[in-house]
Amino acid sequence: MAGAREEDRRSVAQKLFAILDAFDGGPTLTLTEIAHRASLPLSTAHRLVAELTEWGGVVRADDGRYSLGLRLWRLGVRQPTARRLSALARPYLEDLLELTGEHVHLAVLDGLGATYLERLSGRDAVRVLSAVGAKLPLHATGVGLALLAFAPPELLDEVLAAGPVKFQPETLTTEKELRARLAEIRATDLSVSVNALTPRVFSIAAPVRNSSGQVVAAVSIIARIERQAEPQFEFGVRMAARGISSALGWHP
Amino acid sequence: MAGAREEDRRSVAQKLFAILDAFDGGPTLTLTEIAHRASLPLSTAHRLVAELTEWGGVVRADDGRYSLGLRLWRLGVRQPTARRLSALARPYLEDLLELTGEHVHLAVLDGLGATYLERLSGRDAVRVLSAVGAKLPLHATGVGLALLAFAPPELLDEVLAAGPVKFQPETLTTEKELRARLAEIRATDLSVSVNALTPRVFSIAAPVRNSSGQVVAAVSIIARIERQAEPQFEFGVRMAARGISSALGWHP
Repeated sequence: MAGAREEDRRSVAQKLFAILDAFDGGPTLTLTEIAHRASLPLSTAHRLVAELTEWGGVVRADDGRYSLGLRLWRLGVRQPTARRLSALARPYLEDLLELTGEHVHLAVLDGLGATYLERLSGRDAVRVLSAVGAKLPLHATGVGLALLAFAPPELLDEVLAAGPVKFQPETLTTEKELRARLAEIRATDLSVSVNALTPRVFSIAAPVRNSSGQVVAAVSIIARIERQAEPQFEFGVRMAARGISSALGWHP
Repeated sequence: MAGAREEDRRSVAQKLFAILDAFDGGPTLTLTEIAHRASLPLSTAHRLVAELTEWGGVVRADDGRYSLGLRLWRLGVRQPTARRLSALARPYLEDLLELTGEHVHLAVLDGLGATYLERLSGRDAVRVLSAVGAKLPLHATGVGLALLAFAPPELLDEVLAAGPVKFQPETLTTEKELRARLAEIRATDLSVSVNALTPRVFSIAAPVRNSSGQVVAAVSIIARIERQAEPQFEFGVRMAARGISSALGWHP
């Protein structure tokens, strides 16, 4: 643990955030697990977790394990971007689900990742990594590339500097490959990826624009590669992106 | 502001929580508004908001106003109770919406309030105070009374000690009234309220149980008083509560 031998230079706030982030690794944690994941001495973790518990940010179950509390859930649902976009997009996403029967996503740019605000899934949809609240890399997802294509050019530099991971043989990781793909996305207003993160699946994504034409989200479907030739995917994704953009006040 | 004349005895953690709670009052706030609502000197608010911003708990828009960030939304959607209950309950709530065309709620006990995890609404549903993420008083809502009826008896003492507000002439506020109503709810497994919080509406709520028979949530409908005699409300609410309980593993 950082605190044991050398001085921990983090502020109290940063230690609290490290405790909250520890729950990325599991929905319920013991105090020892929290201390370990947040690199804090047990005594510090104990004191800060007690403060978080009093506030309602974490709750302690009868078995002594902690989980995130309803107070955080209530703050989270009030997050204006997520709430507004999800509410506006929902009917269009449901139409897209009905049309395709596959996974349907709505994602927004979040640092160097795409954060999934919504995911609706058909009964027989393929197993993939996306989930509501998940944050997946920009260069390896259809929505991520769609968001990156319309972001300020510095973002691509940051993605490249971070060293994009080659999850599959088909994952784009070099500057040349990525620049070419992003130009294609800007030209077609569509982001088509095959096997970027998960093998044997394809993704079709399209940008969602707000009233000033700025890309604020992306909508996508993911399905098994066998279905790639079916025309309703591209059509459906374009329609959904257009519908949500128009609900946001975009009139091209 | 508390800090101006007398010493602020709150810990750094408590000051951070006060900043997050400030967003209860509005989705976007200026730094001055945050400092005011959290009773902090501007310099302290500035420093803590900067730390929150770096973590992603709040974001600063181009106009300088702050709102809650996606990091909190991501933590919130991972809250295990809310996530599991909502996912399990959703199909039953949708059936209840289809049956009634009114507001359909799922709420859980949260301190001295009922927090609304889900709300589905028919097109012509009456205007009420409930919303996803809202926390409403136990004594003045159908779901709140249903949760209170099956909670440890000390909770009623706490509700009474807090001084229950008489929102409408029909709101129950005395110990005698509340004890009688809670006994009735336990006897019938149903919580029927009229004009408790909003005039000219009624609510029918029923408890949701987990595999050990513990009441963990309540489901309700709210509709205009004119429809109170229609039999499908009680039937639908009982069926939804039973369905969700059974999905949670309850077998009476």
